[in-house]
Amino acid sequence: MVAELIDGKAISQQIVHEVRTELDVVRQKVPTFTPCLAIVQVGDRKDSEVYIRNKAKLAEDIGVEVKVIKLPRSTTQQQLEDTIDQLNADDAVDGIIIQLPADSEHPIETHHVIDKISHAKDVDGLTRENAGRLARGELDHAILPCTPYGCLLLVKNVLGDYSKIAGKRVVVIGRSKIVGLPASALFLWHNATVTTCHSKTANLKEQCLQADILIVAIGSSKFVKGDWIKPGAIVIDCGINVDVTPEGKRVLTGDVDFAQAKEVASHITPVPGGVGPMTVAMLLHNTFTQGVARRVEGFISEHWKLT
Amino acid sequence: MVAELIDGKAISQQIVHEVRTELDVVRQKVPTFTPCLAIVQVGDRKDSEVYIRNKAKLAEDIGVEVKVIKLPRSTTQQQLEDTIDQLNADDAVDGIIIQLPADSEHPIETHHVIDKISHAKDVDGLTRENAGRLARGELDHAILPCTPYGCLLLVKNVLGDYSKIAGKRVVVIGRSKIVGLPASALFLWHNATVTTCHSKTANLKEQCLQADILIVAIGSSKFVKGDWIKPGAIVIDCGINVDVTPEGKRVLTGDVDFAQAKEVASHITPVPGGVGPMTVAMLLHNTFTQGVARRVEGFISEHWKLT
Ligand SMILES: NC(=O)C1=CN([C@@H]2O[C@H](COP(=O)(O)OP(=O)(O)OC[C@H]3O[C@@H](n4cnc5c(N)ncnc54)[C@H](OP(=O)(O)O)[C@@H]3O)[C@@H](O)[C@H]2O)C=CC1
Ligand SMILES: NC(=O)C1=CN([C@@H]2O[C@H](COP(=O)(O)OP(=O)(O)OC[C@H]3O[C@@H](n4cnc5c(N)ncnc54)[C@H](OP(=O)(O)O)[C@@H]3O)[C@@H](O)[C@H]2O)C=CC1
Repeated sequence: MVAELIDGKAISQQIVHEVRTELDVVRQKVPTFTPCLAIVQVGDRKDSEVYIRNKAKLAEDIGVEVKVIKLPRSTTQQQLEDTIDQLNADDAVDGIIIQLPADSEHPIETHHVIDKISHAKDVDGLTRENAGRLARGELDHAILPCTPYGCLLLVKNVLGDYSKIAGKRVVVIGRSKIVGLPASALFLWHNATVTTCHSKTANLKEQCLQADILIVAIGSSKFVKGDWIKPGAIVIDCGINVDVTPEGKRVLTGDVDFAQAKEVASHITPVPGGVGPMTVAMLLHNTFTQGVARRVEGFISEHWKLT
Repeated sequence: MVAELIDGKAISQQIVHEVRTELDVVRQKVPTFTPCLAIVQVGDRKDSEVYIRNKAKLAEDIGVEVKVIKLPRSTTQQQLEDTIDQLNADDAVDGIIIQLPADSEHPIETHHVIDKISHAKDVDGLTRENAGRLARGELDHAILPCTPYGCLLLVKNVLGDYSKIAGKRVVVIGRSKIVGLPASALFLWHNATVTTCHSKTANLKEQCLQADILIVAIGSSKFVKGDWIKPGAIVIDCGINVDVTPEGKRVLTGDVDFAQAKEVASHITPVPGGVGPMTVAMLLHNTFTQGVARRVEGFISEHWKLT
């Protein structure tokens, strides 16, 4: 068996297209409406610059304004929190994200700073408040964190319908605040039976073999092998790792051994071109919907969901 | 094999004893310190009266003051919220719980009211804020909800040490805000590999058979059968159901078929006398620790945990 590729690039473009179309509709009512995403960057890590450029480029394509607030490496936690306060208070800003990791000379408690972002502008969906909503299944009142939201849509794209997730065995490897945990919550509240695995899991291979849908977010190149995968499973690989080939070439790899896994799975995401582009698309989707919900009265309900 | 009984009554008495001893120690420093638990009751359901009486009795044994705020069935959501506001503001009140279900003529959004309880006084551990802390594994800054906390201590009592939970396969049946969900979070953050099951789970028996530790919180008498249990598993039954015998006698039953399950499990909680008494003990434990943390400066850290 050779698995079908889940084309995250194409699916993300579809989402981008839907957001652009929706934005046009909103503009017929409020011509001046331009969703605005504020990205706070501390320091000047090269990888952060690349990520921010990707976001800004896609935002521009859609018609979302991006405001990069670049703070020096000398920024303290208090100064960073003050920046968040200002952005919370700025009516023109619809979404606020902090480009991680914050590269400061001072110790920064990142999650403490993130928790300062007001719920309506938490377009990464990473505040504790939002984690509580997700955990309790209050999905209509939660902002779905971008990477797990992307995973959910990729799975929906394979199955045809959210309702098909119900009763499926989902195994999530990873329990980070950004990927693993919210992914477990999202699939649980789409009525899957969810097992959460992590570095203390005994016999990870055996757990994986139970999965109808396997979501991998470890951060370790090609960690999940082909014989860990139940034949016919859907495999979603969130990993982004850089391997260096014997010839010294840098290549992006996932957390799943793709060459092996594609022989066993029914559907699998490639890296790159799987979860990665979805994450950026969901960020702009969230920025748009939060902006509309907050600023364009009566237009859209917070129940507006991607079709 | 006949399973060993997990004696929730005895273990809860041990906890009560520890709280009483700790209270004596605190009083050597602050002789006037009396922890106070406010129980808000709406209406006059007979079962609620029984539950409140049980809590009050144990509280008295320990030296915790209980203040029952009894509101009429005509209470509105707003009036209930105002009551919570007053109790939040009352420095003498250390813990606030709402006896569920609220028996009002008006529709009451219970969880909205509960979310009004200030974090420091949320001794049932049921606010969304607290759910976010639990979900993210911030256990040192969370209040552990009483029933799942009781389950955790019962398991610890069997294994001898929290650290032994790591790597174990835990299956939780139920995903309610009160029992199932926080139980999944607590065991996950004690490093178990946790599967959460619910009414949409396909092939529940097969899931249960994987569990080294099976936590059941369904609300359906004797639902889990003996042949669903892995030989040697630890079975924790949260269920409280009332069955009527052919002779018309009312008997309490759990969600597990105890007679069958005890032939397979290594350790099992009875109903009554298992999880039930633990829940009340943990409530008073939480009231005490929250009171001390808020009012007795420098005495106890929020890291104080049951030994
Ligand atoms: N596509 C995208 O846009 C995004 C991709 N990513 C990528 O996803 C991956 C995960 O990211 P993130 O969640 O932030 O990473 P974290 O490092 O925060 O979390 C990794 C998780 O994997 C678990 N883990 C680590 N090693 C093992 C192991 N040997 N066996 C089982 N579990 C293990 C850890 O367990 P424990 O909790 O026990 O330590 C932890 O829960 C990375 O490759 C990252 O680059 C991340 C964000 C966005
Ligand atoms: N010992 C104590 O002090 C306490 C005991 N309890 C007892 O614990 C039990 C559970 O209480 P609570 O969590 O509040 O109940 P809820 O009714 O709120 O939740 C029940 C959970 O069980 C799931 N469920 C129901 N039927 C099935 C089924 N056939 N197969 C699989 N899962 C099922 C439901 O799934 P879904 O989400 O899909 O609907 C739901 O998640 C009750 O017996 C209650 O009396 C509760 C609190 C304290």
